[in-house]
Amino acid sequence: MTDDDAPDAGGAGPSHPAPGDVGFVQPRDFVYGRPFTFKKGQTIPGFTLRYETYGTLSATRDNAVLICHALSGDHHCAGWHSAEDRKPGWWNNLIGPGKAVDTNRFFVICANVLGGCQGSTGPSSVDPASGAPYGIRFPALTVRDMVESQRLLLDHLGISEVHAVIGGSMGGMMALMFAIAHPHLVRRVIAMACTARESAQAIAFNEVGRQAILQDPAWAGGDYPREGGPRVGLAIARMMAHITYLSDASLDRKFGRRAVQPKTGEAAVKQGAAAFDLQFEVESYLRYQGRAFTNRFDANSYLYITRALDEFDLAQDFGSLDKAFGSVLAESLVVGFTSDWLFPPEQNRSVALSLLRAGKRATYAELSTDLGHDSFLLESEELYRLVRAFLERGLTGQDFAI
Amino acid sequence: MTDDDAPDAGGAGPSHPAPGDVGFVQPRDFVYGRPFTFKKGQTIPGFTLRYETYGTLSATRDNAVLICHALSGDHHCAGWHSAEDRKPGWWNNLIGPGKAVDTNRFFVICANVLGGCQGSTGPSSVDPASGAPYGIRFPALTVRDMVESQRLLLDHLGISEVHAVIGGSMGGMMALMFAIAHPHLVRRVIAMACTARESAQAIAFNEVGRQAILQDPAWAGGDYPREGGPRVGLAIARMMAHITYLSDASLDRKFGRRAVQPKTGEAAVKQGAAAFDLQFEVESYLRYQGRAFTNRFDANSYLYITRALDEFDLAQDFGSLDKAFGSVLAESLVVGFTSDWLFPPEQNRSVALSLLRAGKRATYAELSTDLGHDSFLLESEELYRLVRAFLERGLTGQDFAI
Repeated sequence: MTDDDAPDAGGAGPSHPAPGDVGFVQPRDFVYGRPFTFKKGQTIPGFTLRYETYGTLSATRDNAVLICHALSGDHHCAGWHSAEDRKPGWWNNLIGPGKAVDTNRFFVICANVLGGCQGSTGPSSVDPASGAPYGIRFPALTVRDMVESQRLLLDHLGISEVHAVIGGSMGGMMALMFAIAHPHLVRRVIAMACTARESAQAIAFNEVGRQAILQDPAWAGGDYPREGGPRVGLAIARMMAHITYLSDASLDRKFGRRAVQPKTGEAAVKQGAAAFDLQFEVESYLRYQGRAFTNRFDANSYLYITRALDEFDLAQDFGSLDKAFGSVLAESLVVGFTSDWLFPPEQNRSVALSLLRAGKRATYAELSTDLGHDSFLLESEELYRLVRAFLERGLTGQDFAI
Repeated sequence: MTDDDAPDAGGAGPSHPAPGDVGFVQPRDFVYGRPFTFKKGQTIPGFTLRYETYGTLSATRDNAVLICHALSGDHHCAGWHSAEDRKPGWWNNLIGPGKAVDTNRFFVICANVLGGCQGSTGPSSVDPASGAPYGIRFPALTVRDMVESQRLLLDHLGISEVHAVIGGSMGGMMALMFAIAHPHLVRRVIAMACTARESAQAIAFNEVGRQAILQDPAWAGGDYPREGGPRVGLAIARMMAHITYLSDASLDRKFGRRAVQPKTGEAAVKQGAAAFDLQFEVESYLRYQGRAFTNRFDANSYLYITRALDEFDLAQDFGSLDKAFGSVLAESLVVGFTSDWLFPPEQNRSVALSLLRAGKRATYAELSTDLGHDSFLLESEELYRLVRAFLERGLTGQDFAI
């Protein structure tokens, strides 16, 4: 997910909530104090999920919309934490008063996933049994575990049914899993840029990223200090993954073959190590992406979450994709993007088709974009109208009086 | 370029020249003992090119076909070095007696590029001035330098005109550059899976590979021992690049989501570090590719050659692509492959179109394949017929009597 700005964005100074933004928001922690058993069998004595909410829960607690984030995302999907923030939450363009996911109407919830590193319990959290971070003693993680932990959050908030679960990429996988595992909990699903299982190519890219981390000596078997760790490997993994989130066309539009301007006094023809200094703008952009990521993401979380993504396979888990969707009660909107080559349109289309074969209410929309996999984050009126109409269809002004 | 077999191929035992193979071949060294100045201005006191030839040079020395290899290729493009070889030269399917590039007819030459590491002078070669390897004191390299050094090899062989220059990927770039820089030297060009300049995405992937090498502590500023060096970084670079040489479809066909069979006694649910062991066959394949590459390739050569590829830009060098081709006398066949997403069909097509606009004899063929960029290495009757017909058009049985 592209949630780091380009290097030059840093100079723009602090921004402020605009009309239509949810304004300043504060994350909260849901502390679940009982043992939690992961799908693969291991148990932890409890967990924390960091989450944010926007809007107001209706008296009848029926206007909740759960947002599920992608691999590198977090709970901060809208609004601002402070006036010093360089940018708002990652889906701020979609979520807010009067926006496609209208916080005047809906109570929006977004939690950092279990296994993550932005405040929720994950490999970098302290294992109460040992007093040291879990590291790779953290239980093997699946998308199902992310979903179950967030279901407990909904319980905690007194919400027994959500109006919708919405997510892109991994968030789309979670939205589908929610509707399968907890049919009575989910009325509507919007899954964007998603897949019912990754292709060999997507697994291959994740594997290269994992190897970059695992083979960085600073990974140290997974037990690295908080302010250290395999930053080189993690940056390499992120640089590569970042290319897969975009598209040839968007990179050409943004950077093309533009050269970085040489600094004053620099030789026109670089020799020796300098020959491998920055030369093209796209290189500078990628290096920035890599560096920025290591400042906010834990390498072990990256290992766990990418493995969970690679293992996500609804057809294998349930016998077939159609069988997987057998339990679903929700109505689904699946959105694919023409330029997405990581989870390409066909894979999104096949999800909707399978839902239909399983006798469910489902539809597929394919949007022409050139931003690649990250198109679900686009500022796109077409996407906004699609989301708004799907969320609000059949509702009257009286619904969800809050 | 995919020139390493999958791990399981190792068990097949030695193979032997088949009918139609050029048989056992031996590389030779061309030693150029005079100063050679690179395009960017640096000079080395001389260089060696390791090369192979197949077939017989005609009495009039007019039946030479120069083969140019891709990034990770070498001079060994056909035949076998010994009965113990696991596999023949990388284009053995295309080149041999009676094959598309018919060694009964043509005298085939292929040299490891300047800057390479398979016997030709490159960063791992000893600088006679210091007695130590050049490392990153090797001059900044361009595709033009690769071409000029091979032109000197042709001089040495007494060849003042070649019947054809043929190459795929980087080899295609070299073939185009040959025809531009030495119009009287080249009668026909076959450029496959090539581009007149890389897209930002292709540069981006190369940059990630370079960073993986440069940030590997074992790179040591470029001065690493011969039996050491940044093997981790080079393997990561190769694993990632290898994905870009194939296609989603070919990886799905070859591996899909097949799991690696657990070893006897292994836990069904892996925990801790074991959770990041091999799980999918595609991972095993990639790790093998990475390892195998580090046994035969020099990391500094990888830096130099990828940089040369990124900088290759005919339009920039000559003012426009049409102007670049202004000097060309050769007739050109450009071949694109539908599944090539690294140098996609459009980029190949635009080369042919520009040649035509420049008033040259040129044609473009697009083959439907699912092997991705590496499709030029495919066993494809369609490709063979295309190459043979283009090479032999207008020739009679009497031509090139040898």
